[in-house]
Formats: sequence, structure tokens, C-alpha cells
Amino acid sequence: MLDAANQGITSRTEALLYAAARSQVVAEVISPALKAGKIVLADRYMDSTIAYQGYGRGLELGFLQQLNQLCTGGLKPDLTLLLDLDSQEAGQRRKKEIPDRLEKEGLAFQEKVRQGYLVLAEQEKERIKVLDARQAPEKVLQQAVGWLDEIIRSHRK
Amino acid sequence: MLDAANQGITSRTEALLYAAARSQVVAEVISPALKAGKIVLADRYMDSTIAYQGYGRGLELGFLQQLNQLCTGGLKPDLTLLLDLDSQEAGQRRKKEIPDRLEKEGLAFQEKVRQGYLVLAEQEKERIKVLDARQAPEKVLQQAVGWLDEIIRSHRK
Repeated sequence: MLDAANQGITSRTEALLYAAARSQVVAEVISPALKAGKIVLADRYMDSTIAYQGYGRGLELGFLQQLNQLCTGGLKPDLTLLLDLDSQEAGQRRKKEIPDRLEKEGLAFQEKVRQGYLVLAEQEKERIKVLDARQAPEKVLQQAVGWLDEIIRSHRK
Repeated sequence: MLDAANQGITSRTEALLYAAARSQVVAEVISPALKAGKIVLADRYMDSTIAYQGYGRGLELGFLQQLNQLCTGGLKPDLTLLLDLDSQEAGQRRKKEIPDRLEKEGLAFQEKVRQGYLVLAEQEKERIKVLDARQAPEKVLQQAVGWLDEIIRSHRK
């Protein structure tokens, strides 16, 4: 059950550690901010668990969905923006940075993760909006702001 | 949701961190040993999560039962020996050791944990055997060996 590429930590343990971190950030940062009426922007959240640990590492999706429920208490984003890019091009852009644990897994892994995100976007079209990240940064930003405007307006009604 | 007595870590995060550690020890130590036909003795296991994080910290038992299922994959002990002692006397015996995070919680907490273990023992009489730890060490050992003999014999049939 041990995965050498994974430095001795099993995929299940990795998923539980991410869940612990997420549980803490929900309690310490996100929930208090929402209660104070603030808008919360997060870099990654529960979808990453499904994409990386599910589609990437191959853990059962049911296990991960339960874990997401446990660590977030069911708190879901109103809007998720998925900046989609071919894994090879994403790798090129990332080239000069020091890769983290998951980025080291290579192109095939990144492509599985990307496909996982796209499946989620297909399943939850209302919440997850896919932006084509091959476009110029200004164009991506413009589309992101458009979706943000829309979700904020719909909450003000 | 933050608990100051808990050094900033929520009870939920604490439970998830214990689950991560347990998941790893199951994959790395317990499962391989069982597959090799060995007998595994563990100091603490899933019942501790229910007793400490459930009865002690007050987390929902349903959440913790799910978490136990996720981190052990449903692997349960054949026999659990519960050495039961009045919390005050247990505190006396422990006196000279440096208390850990959970031992620092005080007598009322320890008593809630103890009652949690006793509820579990009542619910699973076949698996959990309560030994009276006020008895002389030789007597406790003798009873423990008696239960071990019985479970080993029942597995050889």
C-alpha cells in the first residue's frame, strides 16, 4: 500500500492531512470571514481533493467526497473559476519555480488531475466556470471579473 | 469554533490529524504484519478517537465513526483490553511523567474520556473486555493473558 514516489506517505494519509489543513482553514479563516459578511477568495478548496487525490492518485471518489464533507462541514463555494490549460504548456510556464510534492509527479499525473477538474466542471456547470487560460492574461481576468460580477449581483437580489 | 485550551487547533482538525496518523500506521505497520500472519498489539486505536475526540472533546460521534471507517478501511481489532481506573487515581500514577496535549486537559476531561470507553465496552461486550486496573499488576496481567489465550484459541479452531 506504500507508494515510493510518494515518499512513504500513502495517498490516503496525504488526503487526510489535506483534510486536516482544510478543516482548520475553514474554522479559523473562512467561517469567521463569512459570518462577518466578507467575500472569501480561495486558491484551492474541496475540488482539488477530488482532482488530485481522486483522479490523480486514484483514491475512491466516495471516500474523498465523505472526507470533503467532514472537513468543510458541507461549506461549498458559490462560484469556482477553473483556469484550464494544457498540462504541457502549464509545465512550461511553471518551469522556473521549484516544484512542490504534487507538481513533481510529472505530466501524465497533471493531465489526470486536469481531466478530473474538467469532469467536475461538467457535473457542476452552475458553480464551476471554465476559463481558457491560453488566452491573454487581460482576457482571462476580464472573464473572471464577469463571473464575479454576476455572482455578486445574484446575491444582492 | 477555535478552542484556546487546544492551542488554536480545532477539535475537528485534531481528529483529522489522528486519523491521518492512524491511516499511515494501518498501511505501513498493521496491514503488512497481519498479511504476514503476525499478531498485532496496539496501544491505542479507533476506540480512542471515540473516547477522546467524541466523549472528551464533544465532537459528533457520527463524524468520528465515519472518520474511523475512512482511516482504518474498516479494520477492527479482534480483542480490545480496557484497563479501567478512576481518573483521580490514574492522575496520581501519572504524576511524575510530562503530560501530553490530552493529559493536560484535567480531571473532568479524563473522566468524560473514561466514561466514553465504558460506553463502548458496554456496546461491544464481545470485543472489549474491561480489566479492573486497581488490582495488583500481576492480577491484571493474568486476566489480560487469559483473554489473549481465549482469542488465540478461538482463531485456531
